[in-house]
Amino acid sequence: MGNYKIILQYDGTDYNGWQRLKDVKNTIQGRLERIVSEMTGEETEVIGSGRTDAGVHALGQVANFHTKADFEAEYVKSYINTYLPKDIALIKAEAVDDRFHSRFNAKSKTYVYRIWNDIVPNVFENRFVYSYPKALDVAAMREAAGKLVGKHDFMAFCSNHRTKKSTVRTIYAADVEKIGNEIRIVFRGDGFLYNMARIMAGTILQSGSGEFDPSAIDGVFESRKRENAGITLPAKGLILEKVEYD
Amino acid sequence: MGNYKIILQYDGTDYNGWQRLKDVKNTIQGRLERIVSEMTGEETEVIGSGRTDAGVHALGQVANFHTKADFEAEYVKSYINTYLPKDIALIKAEAVDDRFHSRFNAKSKTYVYRIWNDIVPNVFENRFVYSYPKALDVAAMREAAGKLVGKHDFMAFCSNHRTKKSTVRTIYAADVEKIGNEIRIVFRGDGFLYNMARIMAGTILQSGSGEFDPSAIDGVFESRKRENAGITLPAKGLILEKVEYD
Repeated sequence: MGNYKIILQYDGTDYNGWQRLKDVKNTIQGRLERIVSEMTGEETEVIGSGRTDAGVHALGQVANFHTKADFEAEYVKSYINTYLPKDIALIKAEAVDDRFHSRFNAKSKTYVYRIWNDIVPNVFENRFVYSYPKALDVAAMREAAGKLVGKHDFMAFCSNHRTKKSTVRTIYAADVEKIGNEIRIVFRGDGFLYNMARIMAGTILQSGSGEFDPSAIDGVFESRKRENAGITLPAKGLILEKVEYD
Repeated sequence: MGNYKIILQYDGTDYNGWQRLKDVKNTIQGRLERIVSEMTGEETEVIGSGRTDAGVHALGQVANFHTKADFEAEYVKSYINTYLPKDIALIKAEAVDDRFHSRFNAKSKTYVYRIWNDIVPNVFENRFVYSYPKALDVAAMREAAGKLVGKHDFMAFCSNHRTKKSTVRTIYAADVEKIGNEIRIVFRGDGFLYNMARIMAGTILQSGSGEFDPSAIDGVFESRKRENAGITLPAKGLILEKVEYD
């Protein structure tokens, strides 16, 4: 009997996101559960730290599953990798305490939004960056990012308007780094609402292009209206970098 | 009237190689010539520094074309990039002396063969690496690489057995670098025969796996027999890194 924590990488381009759903084919959770269930001989649920949307990538998604069987962690790693398609990889498997839950126990998540900011496209990383060839004011982007840090009601930064759950989240850090022709926006927070990382990235990008005034962000939080925040950037530039636990 | 030197990057995965050929669709040269001819209003040949095989990538392929028209180099760069598909990019355009010829004037070419040497696949660079999960003896690979350096008749390292042209080439350097889970073989030479880089990489890889004895290489040169050299590694791991001129 065991509980296994697994860390996954994926190129999300060809998947309909993490979550297995009725009538939705080709989800990462669905792919994994078929392999894990084959390995355990049981119908095994693979619990993810959170959903990633269709097209979003992961450098360190965390999941866990319970089984009556008892496996060596190395066996779990090599068995699952053998059957995974080439755009999903299991980089670590570990037997953990039975109470470990990849979603409930997650203390923070780090998402990176990658913008390729040059008129010449990046042919080698095209699947993992959003190309924005026009000039961006990085100082204005940093100002916007700074305004997003803290504990706020992120309703205006969420695409699901009918949620009855709390939309209060804490963003611990929002950094804008320029590395050559690439601008990386790094968010670390206790949780992210539906499309929240992509809407925050869009608001930051539009602050850099001059289409959005960063000083308006406090008012956007107060309004709780999606239309007052910036655009939702495409999924392809977003990567779940890591999930941290105590 | 001008002669333009252009430097190109491409993800070769979805192309039938560089060279435009009758009855072969989707070549990089063919793609470029259509765009350049549209720009010049003439039927313009784009001369490459050399052919890359189907599936081979380029970080710095060099080409040139002549036209009666007179363009600013920046215009050439932005025009061509506008019409190129997202897996080909023109990183530099430059007006050069009329006598410049990207193939005849090339002094050396550098090719990199990338081997991903881990049981966990590299999901983000999967298109650009050859995955070899078993153990490799890097010292033996370096020994083999060292034997390939120098001026030799590379007939045994060439897939085209019916060539009547000289098969003598000079390899200036053949280095094997281990960076994390990746092994990179870097070849610099005055020219490369058909499949030569992939056969040299295969011979080096098999030296590392114990299937080939590096001390046999001198005899392989002498034999001029393809079957005495190692295997031809897949195109996907090969990248034309740069072409150097005086």
